[in-house]
Amino acid sequence: MKSSSSNSIDVDTYVNIFEDAYKKNLEGREPDTLYKPITDLLGRGGKRLRPSLCLMACELVGGDIKEAMPTAICIEFFHNFSLVHDDIEDDSKLRRGEPVLHIKYGLPIAVNAGDGLYALCYEALKENKSLLGVERAWKIFEEIAGLSVVLVEGQAMDLEFKERKEMSESEVIELLGKKTAELFAVSAKCGAIAGGASYETAEELGSAWEEIGIAFQIRDDILNVIGEEAKYGKRIGEDIVEGKPTLLLIHCLEHCEVHEKEIIYNCFYDYDIQKIEEVVNLFRKYGSIKYSEEIARRYLRMGTDKISGMEGKEAIKERMVTLAKYFVERER
Amino acid sequence: MKSSSSNSIDVDTYVNIFEDAYKKNLEGREPDTLYKPITDLLGRGGKRLRPSLCLMACELVGGDIKEAMPTAICIEFFHNFSLVHDDIEDDSKLRRGEPVLHIKYGLPIAVNAGDGLYALCYEALKENKSLLGVERAWKIFEEIAGLSVVLVEGQAMDLEFKERKEMSESEVIELLGKKTAELFAVSAKCGAIAGGASYETAEELGSAWEEIGIAFQIRDDILNVIGEEAKYGKRIGEDIVEGKPTLLLIHCLEHCEVHEKEIIYNCFYDYDIQKIEEVVNLFRKYGSIKYSEEIARRYLRMGTDKISGMEGKEAIKERMVTLAKYFVERER
Repeated sequence: MKSSSSNSIDVDTYVNIFEDAYKKNLEGREPDTLYKPITDLLGRGGKRLRPSLCLMACELVGGDIKEAMPTAICIEFFHNFSLVHDDIEDDSKLRRGEPVLHIKYGLPIAVNAGDGLYALCYEALKENKSLLGVERAWKIFEEIAGLSVVLVEGQAMDLEFKERKEMSESEVIELLGKKTAELFAVSAKCGAIAGGASYETAEELGSAWEEIGIAFQIRDDILNVIGEEAKYGKRIGEDIVEGKPTLLLIHCLEHCEVHEKEIIYNCFYDYDIQKIEEVVNLFRKYGSIKYSEEIARRYLRMGTDKISGMEGKEAIKERMVTLAKYFVERER
Repeated sequence: MKSSSSNSIDVDTYVNIFEDAYKKNLEGREPDTLYKPITDLLGRGGKRLRPSLCLMACELVGGDIKEAMPTAICIEFFHNFSLVHDDIEDDSKLRRGEPVLHIKYGLPIAVNAGDGLYALCYEALKENKSLLGVERAWKIFEEIAGLSVVLVEGQAMDLEFKERKEMSESEVIELLGKKTAELFAVSAKCGAIAGGASYETAEELGSAWEEIGIAFQIRDDILNVIGEEAKYGKRIGEDIVEGKPTLLLIHCLEHCEVHEKEIIYNCFYDYDIQKIEEVVNLFRKYGSIKYSEEIARRYLRMGTDKISGMEGKEAIKERMVTLAKYFVERER
């Protein structure tokens, strides 16, 4: 990651302020059956990319971080809600290096903890009225409410793939949009709205992050098969076992022989490291990893070009571009 | 149910208007993996008590039903979301006379369908801004957001009981408040807000329905053990098998002998009609059914007295009291 003193960013600053704020939000809540799994999951860390993006977007348009904090909390809770329920739906085993909630606490408590995070996400937004005025507060609520529907529709497409085992490349990109990129877009957009930006500027920023979000997810999917498990916090190759429609997988399925398709389908549902290696070798054979990296780079460039083309101070735009590159070029 | 021509109510009028409106809301949505289970569940009927209450509250304060429709849709979707996830958490088998969603469509699709209903509930509220102005729209959003947290906390208390198998009567009443009555209260309150009532009037009406809601749930729990399965749509005695902390159960546990407690606990988790009958006999032996009926009557009276004591036209208040009695004295 290139950075100069003028545009270097310290994501940790946002992360640290955010940690204090979300913990305060959860302080003293009862019953434990609900809040213990929630604080457990959030306490495992996670990169806090989305709330950091939200806070930075607020600051970049001239706002004070405090104005975007309820929205940042909402967004991180929302993200974690979706992790809890997706892990159930995908029958995942590890999350942030520890057993998923439905294994650690049982299915009923995990389903309810996910619902709890969802509820807390909207509850956090209540504070926005006194902080931002009712008009901006409502606008942010509308964005989050729209996002909620998009996300479950994306998850349904994901589940559908497990049945039909076929998807086109453009459908994969649409899915990445719904399942990941939209949340990035909304984080940036709502951070900017909280910071006092015009809705037009917020929209532009959101649109740029929609593309960066797609790049982010493609990169994440690549890390899932070639990353280091200790850094990554999920089992390597788990996406393949879960039958996730990644760009890697779809590209490979499009180009490989019929008998090789069977090797891939045989890898679904049963975690077997040898079988996973066979599939990863197919990804390499057909250049699916390189291809995915190229597409990720292209989306990253489209997003950062949009940011650079926006009106505003160069230094500020450079900072946001640096953040985008940091998100996409990370190793965990 | 007593009724005169001046205060007789026809809940079907509200139900019919509501059916058309919610179906229109769902029209043309994709993908099927998400919307088929949702339309299936909603299409099974259900009594639509909550949206009817919301619409009636709007009309009673002088508003037009149309003004409360997005809120009524939100409330019914919210109620159905909680049914889908509760059925998973309680391992229920039947809902409205048919297999629960997680049995019919599998767990992943059912978890996601619940999340979908939750998302649609907030999405429906977006319409309120143009319909009611941003201030009233925001007030309704705040009520729903608060309710969401209360409900998951109630569900967590419910799950906790399955472990510790003990609860006091006052805790049961608190739980009925969180799991059921609050939703009735919010339905009435938000209907009134949508209809243009002062927040004070809306609050009073909500407070009355909080008590009626408790009466409703106690009555529902009685029907679960002594009702007719065909009318009721759930398996008779399922609450006992699921280890639900009802007033019936807690009253009986408080009064029965130690060896009889074991008969009750042995009934948990495994559906056995003979064992259920033994427990129901214990309920009768210790007067738990009569006692619960008495408490339900008391809460109903407290709620209806509050309504009668409110300012406003007698005929209108009588209509709402009739609705309350209809809710609580029903047979299904």
